[in-house]
Amino acid sequence: MSRRGLLIILSSPSGAGKSTLARRLRDWDPSIRFSVSATTRTARPGEVDGSDYHFVSEAAFKSMVTKGEMLEHAHVFGNFYGSPKGPVSEAIEAGCDVLFDIDWQGAQQIQKSALASHVLSIFLLPPSISELRRRLESRGQDTDETIQRRMQKSWDEISHWDAYDYVLVNDDLDATEDKLKTIVTAERLRASQQPGVMEHARKLQSEFEEGGT
Amino acid sequence: MSRRGLLIILSSPSGAGKSTLARRLRDWDPSIRFSVSATTRTARPGEVDGSDYHFVSEAAFKSMVTKGEMLEHAHVFGNFYGSPKGPVSEAIEAGCDVLFDIDWQGAQQIQKSALASHVLSIFLLPPSISELRRRLESRGQDTDETIQRRMQKSWDEISHWDAYDYVLVNDDLDATEDKLKTIVTAERLRASQQPGVMEHARKLQSEFEEGGT
Repeated sequence: MSRRGLLIILSSPSGAGKSTLARRLRDWDPSIRFSVSATTRTARPGEVDGSDYHFVSEAAFKSMVTKGEMLEHAHVFGNFYGSPKGPVSEAIEAGCDVLFDIDWQGAQQIQKSALASHVLSIFLLPPSISELRRRLESRGQDTDETIQRRMQKSWDEISHWDAYDYVLVNDDLDATEDKLKTIVTAERLRASQQPGVMEHARKLQSEFEEGGT
Repeated sequence: MSRRGLLIILSSPSGAGKSTLARRLRDWDPSIRFSVSATTRTARPGEVDGSDYHFVSEAAFKSMVTKGEMLEHAHVFGNFYGSPKGPVSEAIEAGCDVLFDIDWQGAQQIQKSALASHVLSIFLLPPSISELRRRLESRGQDTDETIQRRMQKSWDEISHWDAYDYVLVNDDLDATEDKLKTIVTAERLRASQQPGVMEHARKLQSEFEEGGT
């Protein structure tokens, strides 16, 4: 029996260091796949289609939803976002963990799905609201109105932290990275995540029965 | 709000390295208290009353059970074993984790008790049955009949491995020790184990409301 992968959900308000930590987690273990979301919004400067997002038309997005091809989807600021199911199923059946950079709405949908027992959800809190604002402003590619709107959305996101398995205050990137690795390492040691252990227990049983008591 | 301690249950057949690993875990974090079991069996050479076990009379043991002073108790090979509730409640209220070296029957009772949501259960499997027998025989203080009986009990114990949260095959003490530490560290990062994070979230809310959006 081979191991089925974990669905690792990483959520946080924008500006709390989520993207950096997601990248570091995958640098640490390149077997972790990243679930590339599909979205109807336009690409920001520097974003690569198929890597950062799958940029699709509204018609294409809605067709995927109708066909049941989205694991979760949400409507945020007039745009659609969703996680295509195909690559996720393929990865976890191959025993690879899949990392999701999604918001609380998406997390909630996956936690209610058929894959719920394989979900590991982690929420990152910023050290302070002023730090969050500073990080959003420092991107320098958004208008004041956009930043205000993002701050409101960030607050909405933060208010759902307690629906996650684990929660980390990201006041130090290196320390938070270590904690993330510890959590993933421990989750992989769960009885339900180690089919090899079941085989080992069976082997012990045979050995016990052959050897007598 | 202060943190409530975890009940860390470590179970395994005798001879799988449980006592050594329990000691190493407490050397690593001396704040972890050990739940000293009460028993009606006689002390083995070298065992210290109050440290290895509380050696009590059958009347005293039964009185504790009747008064509801045992968190769990079991009858094994004609002797009673149980975990006194008082020291455990005291430790977890003080925010200290408590380590239990108990069998599957005890684990099951604690997992059904009011403290179930604070339980972290770990099972250690031996690398092989022959290794288990070798370790039991090398103690050199038991008769053949006792060893046979222990082997049977060990098998009974092993067959319950899948009722535990985590399971580790102890084929290398140092590696198993590292895994144990990783599991305990990760469990302490759970949202439910970090009241400080709730306070932090409240602080963020105040800051957000004061600063406007």
